[in-house]
Amino acid sequence: MITSSSVTRVRFDHHRSKRTGVAEAILAEGKSDPDLLLTIEAALSKQPNVLVTRAQDRIDLISSKFSIALKSSGTLILGEFDQRDLQPLVGIIGAGTSDTAVMDEIELTLLYHGIGSYRLQDVGVANIQRTLQAMEEISKTQVVILVLVAGQEGALFSVIPGMTSLPCIAVPSPVGYGEGGKGLAALYSALQSCSPGLVTVNIGNGFGAAAFCAKYLKSMK
Amino acid sequence: MITSSSVTRVRFDHHRSKRTGVAEAILAEGKSDPDLLLTIEAALSKQPNVLVTRAQDRIDLISSKFSIALKSSGTLILGEFDQRDLQPLVGIIGAGTSDTAVMDEIELTLLYHGIGSYRLQDVGVANIQRTLQAMEEISKTQVVILVLVAGQEGALFSVIPGMTSLPCIAVPSPVGYGEGGKGLAALYSALQSCSPGLVTVNIGNGFGAAAFCAKYLKSMK
Amino acid sequence: MITSSSVTRVRFDHHRSKRTGVAEAILAEGKSDPDLLLTIEAALSKQPNVLVTRAQDRIDLISSKFSIALKSSGTLILGEFDQRDLQPLVGIIGAGTSDTAVMDEIELTLLYHGIGSYRLQDVGVANIQRTLQAMEEISKTQVVILVLVAGQEGALFSVIPGMTSLPCIAVPSPVGYGEGGKGLAALYSALQSCSPGLVTVNIGNGFGAAAFCAKYLKSMK
Amino acid sequence: MITSSSVTRVRFDHHRSKRTGVAEAILAEGKSDPDLLLTIEAALSKQPNVLVTRAQDRIDLISSKFSIALKSSGTLILGEFDQRDLQPLVGIIGAGTSDTAVMDEIELTLLYHGIGSYRLQDVGVANIQRTLQAMEEISKTQVVILVLVAGQEGALFSVIPGMTSLPCIAVPSPVGYGEGGKGLAALYSALQSCSPGLVTVNIGNGFGAAAFCAKYLKSMK
Amino acid sequence: MITSSSVTRVRFDHHRSKRTGVAEAILAEGKSDPDLLLTIEAALSKQPNVLVTRAQDRIDLISSKFSIALKSSGTLILGEFDQRDLQPLVGIIGAGTSDTAVMDEIELTLLYHGIGSYRLQDVGVANIQRTLQAMEEISKTQVVILVLVAGQEGALFSVIPGMTSLPCIAVPSPVGYGEGGKGLAALYSALQSCSPGLVTVNIGNGFGAAAFCAKYLKSMK
Amino acid sequence: MITSSSVTRVRFDHHRSKRTGVAEAILAEGKSDPDLLLTIEAALSKQPNVLVTRAQDRIDLISSKFSIALKSSGTLILGEFDQRDLQPLVGIIGAGTSDTAVMDEIELTLLYHGIGSYRLQDVGVANIQRTLQAMEEISKTQVVILVLVAGQEGALFSVIPGMTSLPCIAVPSPVGYGEGGKGLAALYSALQSCSPGLVTVNIGNGFGAAAFCAKYLKSMK
Amino acid sequence: MITSSSVTRVRFDHHRSKRTGVAEAILAEGKSDPDLLLTIEAALSKQPNVLVTRAQDRIDLISSKFSIALKSSGTLILGEFDQRDLQPLVGIIGAGTSDTAVMDEIELTLLYHGIGSYRLQDVGVANIQRTLQAMEEISKTQVVILVLVAGQEGALFSVIPGMTSLPCIAVPSPVGYGEGGKGLAALYSALQSCSPGLVTVNIGNGFGAAAFCAKYLKSMK
Amino acid sequence: MITSSSVTRVRFDHHRSKRTGVAEAILAEGKSDPDLLLTIEAALSKQPNVLVTRAQDRIDLISSKFSIALKSSGTLILGEFDQRDLQPLVGIIGAGTSDTAVMDEIELTLLYHGIGSYRLQDVGVANIQRTLQAMEEISKTQVVILVLVAGQEGALFSVIPGMTSLPCIAVPSPVGYGEGGKGLAALYSALQSCSPGLVTVNIGNGFGAAAFCAKYLKSMK
Repeated sequence: MITSSSVTRVRFDHHRSKRTGVAEAILAEGKSDPDLLLTIEAALSKQPNVLVTRAQDRIDLISSKFSIALKSSGTLILGEFDQRDLQPLVGIIGAGTSDTAVMDEIELTLLYHGIGSYRLQDVGVANIQRTLQAMEEISKTQVVILVLVAGQEGALFSVIPGMTSLPCIAVPSPVGYGEGGKGLAALYSALQSCSPGLVTVNIGNGFGAAAFCAKYLKSMK
Repeated sequence: MITSSSVTRVRFDHHRSKRTGVAEAILAEGKSDPDLLLTIEAALSKQPNVLVTRAQDRIDLISSKFSIALKSSGTLILGEFDQRDLQPLVGIIGAGTSDTAVMDEIELTLLYHGIGSYRLQDVGVANIQRTLQAMEEISKTQVVILVLVAGQEGALFSVIPGMTSLPCIAVPSPVGYGEGGKGLAALYSALQSCSPGLVTVNIGNGFGAAAFCAKYLKSMK
Repeated sequence: MITSSSVTRVRFDHHRSKRTGVAEAILAEGKSDPDLLLTIEAALSKQPNVLVTRAQDRIDLISSKFSIALKSSGTLILGEFDQRDLQPLVGIIGAGTSDTAVMDEIELTLLYHGIGSYRLQDVGVANIQRTLQAMEEISKTQVVILVLVAGQEGALFSVIPGMTSLPCIAVPSPVGYGEGGKGLAALYSALQSCSPGLVTVNIGNGFGAAAFCAKYLKSMK
Repeated sequence: MITSSSVTRVRFDHHRSKRTGVAEAILAEGKSDPDLLLTIEAALSKQPNVLVTRAQDRIDLISSKFSIALKSSGTLILGEFDQRDLQPLVGIIGAGTSDTAVMDEIELTLLYHGIGSYRLQDVGVANIQRTLQAMEEISKTQVVILVLVAGQEGALFSVIPGMTSLPCIAVPSPVGYGEGGKGLAALYSALQSCSPGLVTVNIGNGFGAAAFCAKYLKSMK
Repeated sequence: MITSSSVTRVRFDHHRSKRTGVAEAILAEGKSDPDLLLTIEAALSKQPNVLVTRAQDRIDLISSKFSIALKSSGTLILGEFDQRDLQPLVGIIGAGTSDTAVMDEIELTLLYHGIGSYRLQDVGVANIQRTLQAMEEISKTQVVILVLVAGQEGALFSVIPGMTSLPCIAVPSPVGYGEGGKGLAALYSALQSCSPGLVTVNIGNGFGAAAFCAKYLKSMK
Repeated sequence: MITSSSVTRVRFDHHRSKRTGVAEAILAEGKSDPDLLLTIEAALSKQPNVLVTRAQDRIDLISSKFSIALKSSGTLILGEFDQRDLQPLVGIIGAGTSDTAVMDEIELTLLYHGIGSYRLQDVGVANIQRTLQAMEEISKTQVVILVLVAGQEGALFSVIPGMTSLPCIAVPSPVGYGEGGKGLAALYSALQSCSPGLVTVNIGNGFGAAAFCAKYLKSMK
Repeated sequence: MITSSSVTRVRFDHHRSKRTGVAEAILAEGKSDPDLLLTIEAALSKQPNVLVTRAQDRIDLISSKFSIALKSSGTLILGEFDQRDLQPLVGIIGAGTSDTAVMDEIELTLLYHGIGSYRLQDVGVANIQRTLQAMEEISKTQVVILVLVAGQEGALFSVIPGMTSLPCIAVPSPVGYGEGGKGLAALYSALQSCSPGLVTVNIGNGFGAAAFCAKYLKSMK
Repeated sequence: MITSSSVTRVRFDHHRSKRTGVAEAILAEGKSDPDLLLTIEAALSKQPNVLVTRAQDRIDLISSKFSIALKSSGTLILGEFDQRDLQPLVGIIGAGTSDTAVMDEIELTLLYHGIGSYRLQDVGVANIQRTLQAMEEISKTQVVILVLVAGQEGALFSVIPGMTSLPCIAVPSPVGYGEGGKGLAALYSALQSCSPGLVTVNIGNGFGAAAFCAKYLKSMK
């Protein structure tokens, strides 16, 4: 039995960070085990560390070959990484306890880009006082942009942007059940928000929201 | 040219009110002009009045044959109808100005069943203070159930049930645009509400929500 | 390897019951194992018991740490709970044998809120006599509201509300196969019911229907 | 300005009736005015009459060129056609008044194939007694197959097949509104019917159901 | 730990066969293990045998408690059953090799109702000669109705009804991949067939198609 | 009242033909009247003629400003255009009479690129002999590629590629009704064709199919 | 005939600009004529001007009652408005000529908030050189954020963010046809962009994208 | 326990290659283990080798009975097969590392039909320079047709056809997540491509694209 094809499968984009302000990260999901390891290797061959997302089920595979500097849910920083104290510039606000993995992906992606964050979780609108208090707490910080994480009906995406002049990004979370579950209802709420000026990324795309913040903060300087 | 078939097309259910607590009403939408008139005639042959819904485009047709006692957007009460002063038992709360037609359908259906309502419109969560004030106003009334009307992302369906022990019914309104528009996002928010105990009817089905209230209030006695 | 972030992930809403008439329950689905245990702990730290739903696959995990007072399919009451004799005020009517888990969630949620129920299962319209007999049986009880559970085409949602003046709530059950399966056809039937006044919750949301009943019965007093 | 292409656009299948038991009919919908007239002409060139469906908006166009023997809603028989007295062999049962056009298409298509029908309309399950009476009436006839027409939630598609040993065909009717409207909920109910042995055609396809009956009755002889 | 609720979960419809011409069968899918065994027990308590469908993954469970008379893919006849020689009255025609399980369900359901069948598999239109030969073979039998099984694009549902005056029922098979896979494309083809008179059941519902044949053959007598 | 913005709205791609083998054409649909005229003007400013598609409702507008060289349904060639005799290299095969407009778009687009075609219409599989004859006729020509146009269930997309070694392109036509209508069922059939090697364009995209043929024939030389 | 209900339908949010950085605008779509005029009146009662969007079909109605300061496609500024020279801070890049109306809504909304823009239209990737040139032109300006407008497949949403460190917002445009048309394919491309850091608003929501820019630029100061 | 039915389940189409230019291959997915082995056996009974696709999870099963000549991801050539040096005539261009399995299916299917290919992977538009370089590399080869593989937003399907006169076929890859994931967004991009002349196959259908190339190259000779 012969396996065909020995083509170049990976061309890691080492200049992406310089060109776009966001470093190339590795999405583990959808890659075969050999291709995942190959990609990590390609990344670390020319840079000291790399961010890997959606690796929940591959932790063992990865840690057997590479050193994990930081890990939070399925998001990893591999290689050498110095965790410094950073001033929180991004507020991350989550509706419920089930949003943990998405919030971890946002927090670690920001950290990887050298950005500190201020995180408040389980402050959904089922108890509006909890939400109002969260916003009061945020108003005492120096954050300049908010990332909102919510599943189910995503009401947070309308309530919070209506209370603040900070720009807000929605990250619909794959939480809910039945019709419209798995994040679709939350995505629709982000797309239909009655509070003008909300923008969104795809369901569960915490990396994307953090990447936007990185570009945003870079452009502010 | 001969037209075939002279079958009985209408069997008006005059006993529905007694049997179920909700009178049969006539949905104008989807009926041909002759069939609509035939149905109204059948209804008024044995009872003094009848409720017609979704008749926006047939007002002229209907008024040329029958007397309109009350009219509000596309909802009509035909025949003889005495409008008495009624104590408001149902709160109707709407998110925006575009929800007018749906709210009119609810108000008039309740009225037809002898139920008074307390209506507050344009109090959506884009300005959460407006919503909180509306709930304070409601708390001063004697209403025992709330009907919530909202289009776009329908955040009202989560915020309000989280603030009150009154039972709440959602009526997603066909307002919004793009993906999830025409009421779908609002329906999904009603189905996914993080505030437990919310029930819903189909998009724009103000009649159905009011009918539930009629059954509810009857069962309370 | 260092795990980042030690934020507050859970803010259990101990006042929800007083504020809204429905106690905060814990949806096991979608929470990671540690977060699930953390949430139960937070709940039981200030109250004697807590309701957990959708925990089919976590029974062992939960029972290794907490005491289960009552269990029915995937619904659990944890902590101390006195099961008193309760007068049945809610009728729960199910179409088939496959609706067991959803009906269990409704029954136990009501029980947790101190509400007794009268349950009739496998009385779907494929044999209309079975349905008619069920309604006759119901008419001899003191129930004041009906919760209807049906999968497949959900015809029960139209037949029963047409026969009774009791308010009815539909719970589409995730039963069926092929196109429209997994509860979608049943949900559509609930949304399109030709019997006016039916309201619905999302597919399989037995907890939500029971929560509405709790609010309803509280408002009746 | 020159118009290109003078290809043969129509090849009328005059032998279809002999080959399959169902004559080729002309679906007006989707054809341009010239192509519709061309097709009718091709049909009538070799046979005395032809059935045209979905011609609601083209009656004037057609009648200006051809003689209409029979007309019912948008279904027409053109040319020469003798309407004889026929024994009713097919039962056509409709849920509401809005199903008129679909029922007309079924009735006229059967008639065109020399088959008599027994029609009962507005006997939907919102009043189950009405449905039971309809079935009693049917049981006194000689019909050997039933065609059921229903929109909205299509509960008729489950209730009736559960009461009779006659084979039943569902025709979902494009009636309803909001999510699942335009016949989709009814189609899903037909596909998910809990009463075994129900078959269905597409939304509004009265012609198709009648054509099946024609084949069925032919195969019985 | 106490398990609540000991309600009647199963009411087996022993008279369905007499009333409708189709015996109640047991759909294993969606039932919990205890409920499945309970239902089989209820069935066999008053009748000598019972048909169970979709039991692929429960064969061991079932055979440990009950005797299997016949088995074909996931369809079983439990109890005592005499397999007599039957004249083939139903033609079962399948497009490909992947349609085996669905065709087995049809064949065994017919057998259970005392109906013989003539089966031809892997004769899809990718090789039209294979299809034409199959129809020639069918024309030499005494079958009076055809059941067509096809996945992917379901072209068989249009080609065969256009060649024969036998009534045809489509059973879309859950075969295919990508967009429209899992039987949806085949279902759409059945609903949109250009050959008039085709009726369909839901994706994979071989039992339903066979049940229709049972009613059909009974009504022919 | 002042109208803002006088930006460059049109940058006509005059070199597209040379670069890609397909000239830029103008899709009338979705452009405002002024923008449509502006675009045509930009096109004709540097080349003798231009192809306009989907202009059914703008013929008067266009002909009032520009000279129409050729017109077929909604497809136009504007400016100066010499219609030469061309050898048919592309076969265009359509299922029914309703496919006329799509077939016209294909034929005229080919003509505009200097390619002759051989067109056969109304040869769908409802009468398989008609289809077989069409293919026999095609086999006598010199065509090297086939474009297949079909609406409804699109069975042609599987039957024809199974009979020939000519490469085939499907163009699903927006013909059909009910669920899966407007071309979706036909598109799904193209995507799921059991005859390997079929490729497709979007519903009604006759221009796209013809453009592929132009590239294809150019690459063959 | 009496019209019921004289409730407050409009509560214009005059403080929204101060609270959130974005002034309340009036979405004409979905409002009845009287409600639209009522809302404009409410707005202008306490502020000198107001922005109205999606008013294409109401220009005559509005201009008969109010003075239009600026108009571009369906976007209007009513009342008194001074158009000053503004430095372009936002780049607006559109793929085709059909994106005009959406781009106009963005440009005028920015203008209303005192923000200048730099607009480049018809630079889609069908001619990648056109896109590269556009980005070169942008790099010579002082813009700090990009709004990308594209319909059809929305490839611009991936190509441009991969070339620049400027933050980018996608506005899917309702352009395209067949499956995925009306902006859905473009929305999906925005949600799935392979270039990290892209955020999106709903189809055609130019107002929303401009509102985000207003918040963004305010937070930068 | 007796298993019913011993019908012919497999009729392998050994003449397909001669008739259509593409040999019948075996899709492992959806076949039961016995049916898969049966089909392979039938194939190898009259020909020296056979192509099997989507066999990722059956490698062990297959290799225990048959000899594997070549294997690449889930695509296999069984039996005897001579791998000769072939001139690359088809370019295969993939967007990312996750497209490996689909690209392998294309490469091996071509090889099986005696066609050489030139493969370039991980050249997606997130780095447009990488894409431009790939096209430059392609221009130096002798390939006459391109197969483009991309998941997520599939922007490659618009960028590349706009740069070349080579005919292009899109193969949407099941890569992406959230709404529009699993290849749907990429399929929509292929269907909506702004670069005229792109054709597509279904998501992940690498075999189909390669089969089209085989027909194409045969017709060129």
